Amino acid sequence: MQQQDLAKKAAGEKATEYIKPNMTIGLGTGSTAYYAIMRIGEMVSGGMPLRAVATSEESEQLARKQGIPIIPFSEIDRIDLDIDGADEVDEHLRLIKGGGGALLREKIVAAASAEMIVITDESKVVKHLGRFPLPVEIVPFAWELTFRRLIALDAAPVLRTSNGRTVVTDNGNFILDCHYERIKDPVALHQQLNDIPGVVENGLFLHYASRVIIGYADGSVKSLSR
Amino acid sequence: MQQQDLAKKAAGEKATEYIKPNMTIGLGTGSTAYYAIMRIGEMVSGGMPLRAVATSEESEQLARKQGIPIIPFSEIDRIDLDIDGADEVDEHLRLIKGGGGALLREKIVAAASAEMIVITDESKVVKHLGRFPLPVEIVPFAWELTFRRLIALDAAPVLRTSNGRTVVTDNGNFILDCHYERIKDPVALHQQLNDIPGVVENGLFLHYASRVIIGYADGSVKSLSR
Repeated sequence: MQQQDLAKKAAGEKATEYIKPNMTIGLGTGSTAYYAIMRIGEMVSGGMPLRAVATSEESEQLARKQGIPIIPFSEIDRIDLDIDGADEVDEHLRLIKGGGGALLREKIVAAASAEMIVITDESKVVKHLGRFPLPVEIVPFAWELTFRRLIALDAAPVLRTSNGRTVVTDNGNFILDCHYERIKDPVALHQQLNDIPGVVENGLFLHYASRVIIGYADGSVKSLSR
Repeated sequence: MQQQDLAKKAAGEKATEYIKPNMTIGLGTGSTAYYAIMRIGEMVSGGMPLRAVATSEESEQLARKQGIPIIPFSEIDRIDLDIDGADEVDEHLRLIKGGGGALLREKIVAAASAEMIVITDESKVVKHLGRFPLPVEIVPFAWELTFRRLIALDAAPVLRTSNGRTVVTDNGNFILDCHYERIKDPVALHQQLNDIPGVVENGLFLHYASRVIIGYADGSVKSLSR
């Protein structure tokens, strides 16, 4: 196992220690969430009663394979604990997410969760958000207008493509990756972006994480909480 | 012609007096915009150089039939004048739109326009916004969570259906019609709604209209401007 994987595994497994019987769990997406889901599968096999919702098809399939009961959103009132990764984390537990393109679904689940534990490795921890390009999900209709609007806001947007084709999210939208280098006021930027008609959601998760677990290459973890 | 149609026709045609040669025009959707589009067609036939973008398939087809040149959004830098209807207008030129389900596209075009003239008849003018149920466009993924979130905000949301089937917008989303009766603070509500992940856009148009033209049954008009 590579060192970064060891760090991700350590963080992912540590997060599962906060799970209590009969909780409804939100399952994140990505390489760190993978280790959490695998461990939750073991807990379910060991007899712990749990149910879960997933933020992507990928995580849902992995969870089902591990025997974790996945329930439809129509059957839940709230999610007790959401465990998800991040592309960037600052010391105020603010996040950038969306590198994998699932930011909208991840944010909907995070917003419906009583607690969110973010699992990450040390490479994602930054002093100031923005080194990682901020993903902004936009509607395809007249996307050029939204694109120009973001240029005017100095966002240096780039339409996300893959093999020369525009990436379409699970929700049928496009993604603009915005290059700020350093986001000075994440709260103001979040509102400014979501105020633009045509912007569905952006990758800033400012008030969601209640705990961040950082994994290190030696298998140790550090936990930050509000 | 019925009295309400006379009022709509009067308002729609009056708005076209603000059109100057070589403008790029945003064409709204609905029964009042219909009369503006018909008149713009006559102006183009009469030799006035104009180009336009449309907020719906319906308006685009009508405009093409009238000989109005429709251009793709990729070819425009900005829209000079947007002419569109509204479901409700208050004395501060604030609007509720979205009864026809096109609020997102209409808002994208309004936001990209230097000026927006709203055309309406006297039945839509109110002292306080909210008598008309506020349409809120939401993503289908986990829509039940967004629905519950709006219940918690006392929005009394109703999922829009037609003939027993959930209405899907041109953008592939759902609409919740929210019953406030009287919206006390439209600015705060607008932000509160757009802050909810899962909400794509809402029908409050607060800072867009620069002029409102109200048509009356006797064919007269009244114009309000900022």
